[in-house]
Amino acid sequence: MGSGFGGLFAAKALRGAKADVTLISGTTYHLFEPLLYQVASGILSEGEVAPPIREILKNRRDIDVRLGWVTDVDVAGKMVVVNYPDGRDRSVPYDSLIVAAGAQNSYFGNEQFAVHAPSLKNIDDALELRSRIFHAFEMADLEEDPEARRRWLTFVLIGAGPTGVEMAGQIAELAHRALRGQYRNADLREAQIILIDAVDRVLPAFAPSLSEKAKKKLTKLGVDVRLNTRVVDVDATGVEVKTADGGQRIEANTKIWAAGVAAPSLSTRIAEATGAETDRAGRILVEPDLTVPGHPEIFVVGDMAGSDLPGVAQVAMQGGRYAAKTVKKRLAGKTDIKPFKYFDKGNMATISRFSAVADLGKLHFGGFLGWLLWLVIHLFYLIGFKNKITTLLHWMVSFLGRGRSERITTVQQMNARNALNTLGKR
Amino acid sequence: MGSGFGGLFAAKALRGAKADVTLISGTTYHLFEPLLYQVASGILSEGEVAPPIREILKNRRDIDVRLGWVTDVDVAGKMVVVNYPDGRDRSVPYDSLIVAAGAQNSYFGNEQFAVHAPSLKNIDDALELRSRIFHAFEMADLEEDPEARRRWLTFVLIGAGPTGVEMAGQIAELAHRALRGQYRNADLREAQIILIDAVDRVLPAFAPSLSEKAKKKLTKLGVDVRLNTRVVDVDATGVEVKTADGGQRIEANTKIWAAGVAAPSLSTRIAEATGAETDRAGRILVEPDLTVPGHPEIFVVGDMAGSDLPGVAQVAMQGGRYAAKTVKKRLAGKTDIKPFKYFDKGNMATISRFSAVADLGKLHFGGFLGWLLWLVIHLFYLIGFKNKITTLLHWMVSFLGRGRSERITTVQQMNARNALNTLGKR
Repeated sequence: MGSGFGGLFAAKALRGAKADVTLISGTTYHLFEPLLYQVASGILSEGEVAPPIREILKNRRDIDVRLGWVTDVDVAGKMVVVNYPDGRDRSVPYDSLIVAAGAQNSYFGNEQFAVHAPSLKNIDDALELRSRIFHAFEMADLEEDPEARRRWLTFVLIGAGPTGVEMAGQIAELAHRALRGQYRNADLREAQIILIDAVDRVLPAFAPSLSEKAKKKLTKLGVDVRLNTRVVDVDATGVEVKTADGGQRIEANTKIWAAGVAAPSLSTRIAEATGAETDRAGRILVEPDLTVPGHPEIFVVGDMAGSDLPGVAQVAMQGGRYAAKTVKKRLAGKTDIKPFKYFDKGNMATISRFSAVADLGKLHFGGFLGWLLWLVIHLFYLIGFKNKITTLLHWMVSFLGRGRSERITTVQQMNARNALNTLGKR
Repeated sequence: MGSGFGGLFAAKALRGAKADVTLISGTTYHLFEPLLYQVASGILSEGEVAPPIREILKNRRDIDVRLGWVTDVDVAGKMVVVNYPDGRDRSVPYDSLIVAAGAQNSYFGNEQFAVHAPSLKNIDDALELRSRIFHAFEMADLEEDPEARRRWLTFVLIGAGPTGVEMAGQIAELAHRALRGQYRNADLREAQIILIDAVDRVLPAFAPSLSEKAKKKLTKLGVDVRLNTRVVDVDATGVEVKTADGGQRIEANTKIWAAGVAAPSLSTRIAEATGAETDRAGRILVEPDLTVPGHPEIFVVGDMAGSDLPGVAQVAMQGGRYAAKTVKKRLAGKTDIKPFKYFDKGNMATISRFSAVADLGKLHFGGFLGWLLWLVIHLFYLIGFKNKITTLLHWMVSFLGRGRSERITTVQQMNARNALNTLGKR
């Protein structure tokens, strides 16, 4: 279950198995999460980063794709309970179960921040952020009061992992390059982009030398990087931060949360049903073969599995593929099943066009070379997902050029936000 | 005011006038309405049919683009009252005013139909319809009860003008060709697409021979065309129709309203403020020079102007351009202002790929030739809007191929619909 990298790669790797495969997912699309920030910044359309699962798997007559949410597992009866969009619950039996429901954002107990600082984990988030970012420029142009205008032109990113860094870089590109000259009243060069993290460097999962490179590049782009800084409160018009020197308030209408992830509630249900233990983030602690202790028929892969592996696409892909291959081996009566071994292909993050950092273990790349590497690898994967060559062309042109053609705010979004702003003023 | 064809062409034609131009619009984008049905059917992304106004006008330093809704006009003080997204009202003064606020859908007093049968006038509508159409196929695949499945596979289009015909053709393409083979449980060939109109032919604004051609082609595509049929009720699970032979109920979860338009409420406000008369649809009756009687400084162009001209893009474009040129002539002290004369370039509607009808007055084209003409003209206009060549390529490939890559349903949309379905069952 799941249509992220884990679920999809498991389904793909089950090709040729003498098995009926059911892929249960809460969305009809596979989300290519590494490019989600490009939807939030107007470069790509939502369809371009989220191809329909049915389209990807259309030649696989053995796979039944079902739109629904797995709410519980009946371990003894070997069935999952699926809540379908019409509200009805139905049970789906299984012989082997591969759980790949990913992670969701965590506000570390401060869920009230979510409405003011949306995160970037799914398509809804990306469309909401896109709409907030472009709306902020629009409002800055209308606003006559300098203080209020500054509030619209200040963007705060909380969390300096890949998402925070990539969004900071993109907002800087928008304000300082892509949208230049399109506003008559506001001067977009005055935009402040503030990237905050409690730790002492950006991209902490990367090599320190790359963190340093990334920070330098961000600063050059006009991003104000504030490390060793903790966010203690978020409201409609700003954030409160704390450093070693004391507290401060930053006035900003647009805030983005890129700080933490946690396991979905399904993780707790599975732990309860199987007696498995979970880690601090609620992820299930699995055996070396990715199965739940005492339940060799249940695999947990990707972000939902508690391990010291990072929460990146590669881990999920390889885990999904491993689980599928194990199922195939068992069906073929083989018993030589080796434990899962993650092959670390490295870590990457773009900062702006022509600049990225790539940490390939022993090899570190920054700047243009890092970016070229990032580009080639992403092109390669996108082509693997049968995206059209024209989509790629469109992407290249928009990304490199000043084109930010996907900027729609729906009326629904605008109404929802106005209600929120009114609330914030009370 | 307005960023549709009327407002945009007026703004463009004011180039070089010794004037400060303010373009006030409730959206940040210009909607290329003739291609809106391609968003609703998953071919194009919303950004591809709705480029940002600021992008289109970025070289025009004389134009101030403002996001807001004109709610009233102070004729004596020569000011419009604008409601900005932050809730505040402000007055914007004018010397000349060009009103081009378009039309909105009309349910002829049955506004309760709207929630069950959305119309297709703006981006929100298109995204909602897209989500309903693809969701219906998804639900049909999940549903085990044959009657309930049939209800998900029945699509009713109310109104056989261009929008109804184009949507009927696209849904038929989806069910019978583009999505073929992507569902394991539902047979999409069983989909029923029903096009209903109270009059006796499809595309009544076209020549009768073209109506006949369009009807034949639709029938061949598997569309059930029901003429002389009036829709008397619409609810969550179907519609009630009436013909000369009596009444009938059609069970269908997905309904699309393409039946009528009316002037926006601003039209009434302007009529009250100026003492102008309106026609039955609420449109303002203007002088031969498109000005409001007694107010030569106020122009009304496009769908908001009451006349015997059709509510098509060409009328709005030419009206906007005429109003702008008149303003320029007056500023230059010229008095030789001729009345507005609409040059009818003809009427077009696509039925499916490779098939369209084009009514150019004396010349009528159907089938492939009509389609080729439609294509060339739309390519020409799209290029005029500075859309990227890659966008055009992407469009061609998707439209001709089986690619329907823009199929996203947001969680927000799904939740809203589930609430509605629950309501419908009570």
